[in-house]
Amino acid sequence: AAASDATPVDLSGYTRVKQELVAPPFAPKHEQVATGGPKIIEVTLETTEKLMVVDEDNGAEIWALTYNGSVPGPLIICHEGDMVEVTIRNPASSMMEHNVDFHASTGALGGGGLTHVYPGEEAVLRWKATKPGCFTYHCAPGGDMIPYHVCHGMNGAVMVLPRDGLKDRDGNALTYDSIAYIGEQDYYLPRDENGDYKTYAVAGDDYADSLEAMRGLVPTHQVFNGAVGALTGENALKAKVGETVLMVHNSCNVDSRPHLIGGHGNYVWETSFTDPALTGVETWFVRGGCAVAAMYTFEQPGVYAYVNHNLIIGVMLGATAHFVVEGEWDNELMEQVVAPRSFET
Amino acid sequence: AAASDATPVDLSGYTRVKQELVAPPFAPKHEQVATGGPKIIEVTLETTEKLMVVDEDNGAEIWALTYNGSVPGPLIICHEGDMVEVTIRNPASSMMEHNVDFHASTGALGGGGLTHVYPGEEAVLRWKATKPGCFTYHCAPGGDMIPYHVCHGMNGAVMVLPRDGLKDRDGNALTYDSIAYIGEQDYYLPRDENGDYKTYAVAGDDYADSLEAMRGLVPTHQVFNGAVGALTGENALKAKVGETVLMVHNSCNVDSRPHLIGGHGNYVWETSFTDPALTGVETWFVRGGCAVAAMYTFEQPGVYAYVNHNLIIGVMLGATAHFVVEGEWDNELMEQVVAPRSFET
Amino acid sequence: AAASDATPVDLSGYTRVKQELVAPPFAPKHEQVATGGPKIIEVTLETTEKLMVVDEDNGAEIWALTYNGSVPGPLIICHEGDMVEVTIRNPASSMMEHNVDFHASTGALGGGGLTHVYPGEEAVLRWKATKPGCFTYHCAPGGDMIPYHVCHGMNGAVMVLPRDGLKDRDGNALTYDSIAYIGEQDYYLPRDENGDYKTYAVAGDDYADSLEAMRGLVPTHQVFNGAVGALTGENALKAKVGETVLMVHNSCNVDSRPHLIGGHGNYVWETSFTDPALTGVETWFVRGGCAVAAMYTFEQPGVYAYVNHNLIIGVMLGATAHFVVEGEWDNELMEQVVAPRSFET
Ligand SMILES: [Cu+2]
Ligand SMILES: [Cu+2]
Ligand SMILES: [Cu+2]
Ligand SMILES: [Cu+2]
Ligand SMILES: [Cu+2]
Ligand SMILES: [Cu+2]
Ligand SMILES: [Mg+2]
Ligand SMILES: [Mg+2]
Ligand SMILES: [Mg+2]
Ligand SMILES: [Mg+2]
Ligand SMILES: [Mg+2]
Ligand SMILES: [Mg+2]
Ligand SMILES: [Mg+2]
Ligand SMILES: [Mg+2]
Ligand SMILES: [Mg+2]
Repeated sequence: AAASDATPVDLSGYTRVKQELVAPPFAPKHEQVATGGPKIIEVTLETTEKLMVVDEDNGAEIWALTYNGSVPGPLIICHEGDMVEVTIRNPASSMMEHNVDFHASTGALGGGGLTHVYPGEEAVLRWKATKPGCFTYHCAPGGDMIPYHVCHGMNGAVMVLPRDGLKDRDGNALTYDSIAYIGEQDYYLPRDENGDYKTYAVAGDDYADSLEAMRGLVPTHQVFNGAVGALTGENALKAKVGETVLMVHNSCNVDSRPHLIGGHGNYVWETSFTDPALTGVETWFVRGGCAVAAMYTFEQPGVYAYVNHNLIIGVMLGATAHFVVEGEWDNELMEQVVAPRSFET
Repeated sequence: AAASDATPVDLSGYTRVKQELVAPPFAPKHEQVATGGPKIIEVTLETTEKLMVVDEDNGAEIWALTYNGSVPGPLIICHEGDMVEVTIRNPASSMMEHNVDFHASTGALGGGGLTHVYPGEEAVLRWKATKPGCFTYHCAPGGDMIPYHVCHGMNGAVMVLPRDGLKDRDGNALTYDSIAYIGEQDYYLPRDENGDYKTYAVAGDDYADSLEAMRGLVPTHQVFNGAVGALTGENALKAKVGETVLMVHNSCNVDSRPHLIGGHGNYVWETSFTDPALTGVETWFVRGGCAVAAMYTFEQPGVYAYVNHNLIIGVMLGATAHFVVEGEWDNELMEQVVAPRSFET
Repeated sequence: AAASDATPVDLSGYTRVKQELVAPPFAPKHEQVATGGPKIIEVTLETTEKLMVVDEDNGAEIWALTYNGSVPGPLIICHEGDMVEVTIRNPASSMMEHNVDFHASTGALGGGGLTHVYPGEEAVLRWKATKPGCFTYHCAPGGDMIPYHVCHGMNGAVMVLPRDGLKDRDGNALTYDSIAYIGEQDYYLPRDENGDYKTYAVAGDDYADSLEAMRGLVPTHQVFNGAVGALTGENALKAKVGETVLMVHNSCNVDSRPHLIGGHGNYVWETSFTDPALTGVETWFVRGGCAVAAMYTFEQPGVYAYVNHNLIIGVMLGATAHFVVEGEWDNELMEQVVAPRSFET
């Protein structure tokens, strides 16, 4: 309705490309510095409801509400001045209505007002990326369904790069070798009178119980990429000494304070790519309802734990990822002068 | 006492003006760029205790403690270098002692130590606005009464503008068409054994119950401008495409993460007006015990929800306001290419 | 192991000095601007387990896990380019394994992987301070023991000054007359069925109960320097009008929002000393897992309360310190024009 009387837009200056979205923690193929003119980037989001294990140690599971089957939804990457054209498709097998609100976009509740799809429906939304930065996107069907869908995993991130790439405060180019895309998810899983996690037959059946648990504001789980251990052990992230990783952290609902144990945030964009990056940061901050980017170049081999540094949340609730880094140890940066040994008092 | 031995201050360079305070979400008449020399701005705060409805859907109410009868208290606006001269008056009908601590001021616990007024008393405090920014003010009678009064609504904001107005990082003037003054209030309403909200005969009767509820740190309600729905529906804020709004957000006790759904923070001053504004922000941050300013120019018509983007708090606890914006839709910024329709698999 | 194959480091350019650590809220002797070349700064941390009173009003106590017997552990100060050489020593009388992770360092989980000492053991770690800023350090023995040790007081801060000292945004030198070193500690003390705080015979006996309390994320106490009232009354901090204090605030686990009632943060470094200081700040922010520095020059005499401005936490949970400042009152900054008096309606 809003659009029907409006002036048709001239898209002749844009090149159409399809962006194949991939599952987190990976990023789609993209250029860091844009070549050529502005693009219309076509992506598809399927609103998939699926039973997911949250913590295999204790049987906690959730009927997750997802984009493309993952928590978080896939990372979308474009450049400032590009348009993103999203097809949102809700399978007929779904139980619920879904939509999508892009924080990176302008108007119509971030597109949420134009993308409500019932099971068996699809819609197409196009929006222009006018502001460079990392931005969350999420389902927002209305009322209490908004936090319900968001707290069931239905959120992800868009990264809008400056056309000429990332820069430091003085305008020097900053590039990365890889992206680690990490979504922090707060879950409020209902428990029965014995304290055991309840199970439900289909998506949506946990609605009343979930709202009651959510109202207390204390998650039962707070995890990276959908489940406890999704980014540790065999699923740990990999890097080499000298490589630079861009950590894109999405937290759609709760504040987070990411810290890379043994490393730092060399450059951290907490707000946008138009503000100067923070530098040499021990622990950065993700306001609930944000995506942020932090860049680090590894200087030592070994295991790095990337955690929410409320360590109760990081360790006990599940917000821990691991980077396994190969390379040569640098004794100048750190040396174990004396290994643990007995001493006489 | 503190002042009695001190050198008398020379006020001859100041012009006296009276600022008529108005109820939120509105701002008093003011200049964005100061004309003339420094002023002594006279304001009156009456410490009014009143029974207020918090959520009319379920009967939640509170014996609110207020300045001038509203939650938040009225917005006071001055320029750097001005003095604010506050008459604080506690009606004889009050049950409690009140005072006021201005974060914008210097000394005597922000003036809290010089303004304790019992029912039937008044006092006058004058302080110089030396630091430009938005600042909270609040009642702070001492001990547990401090959080008790603050969590019963007794807080508001002062905006100290630079004499030459707001600027971007490069020194270009930034002006606004209107101010939306939003106070975020966390309430901890006691419930009985059935979970129903308790009622009390007079202000202060809920003291012991309230302290017990507050200690858990989880609000039962977290609202804008005193009550669920105070800034939605008939009370929604209004604007037009092309207009610039300055959102002044006061949160005296709890952190907040405001997000304008469908819009952005073009310029956000989270700390002070002497720090460069953040730009292109998806979700900004209000540290508990702060007021901040965020500026946005509307580019699309429609409804914008301004929320605390912990969406449990924003939607379920009540921290939502609406802007209704009139104007022409811009298909370049966003277009519904395909409205929701059935698809065949 | 990691270090055994690595190139030996050439330490010939460094001067060795021993830094005598002192108990909080005090700072060790140090230069603000470094003289001479880089140093190897030797410090000793003893991992002491001791029964501490948390709130003498109600008998709350904890078997604290400490560095050098205080909560927080001692402040270590060096300059960028210096090395810190830490001897960590775990008395044979201890019940538990400890180690230390320095956020200021690079590699091996911040040194945590190289410093695990069982009772009766010691180890020596040397690391280079490459990033200027304030950084937390803490025990991180692994798994749930990490938040357990951190939430029992086992954390402190390192300040890495720029070699040429602190500067404002324009490069002008900033110096301080004293340091106030404040550690914010969240405790989750187990209670019995009557709501009384439980007591335990030895360190570690509260492990299961503590984890259960921690999981709720709501502290029973949140205090400065280990106990309610540790920095008030006789223990208040002292200053004079015209003096500049550097407040170094360490919060290893929970976010904080410090506010100096009656004063401000003239310069606040929330992230690092390589980012410009924020200025004229009413309330600053400490992300959980951080140390920050805030500088203020007192302009008025009297008592200033330094609080976590979630005032429930600041007042009821214990996060309050006092500065008592001597000097001359300045009526220009603030004047009590009319002392509280009765008024006729
Ligand atoms: Cu959905
Ligand atoms: Cu949103
Ligand atoms: Cu009051
Ligand atoms: Cu205050
Ligand atoms: Cu330990
Ligand atoms: Cu840490
Ligand atoms: Mg487990
Ligand atoms: Mg962002
Ligand atoms: Mg709907
Ligand atoms: Mg309602
Ligand atoms: Mg009093
Ligand atoms: Mg402010
Ligand atoms: Mg007490
Ligand atoms: Mg720090
Ligand atoms: Mg171990």
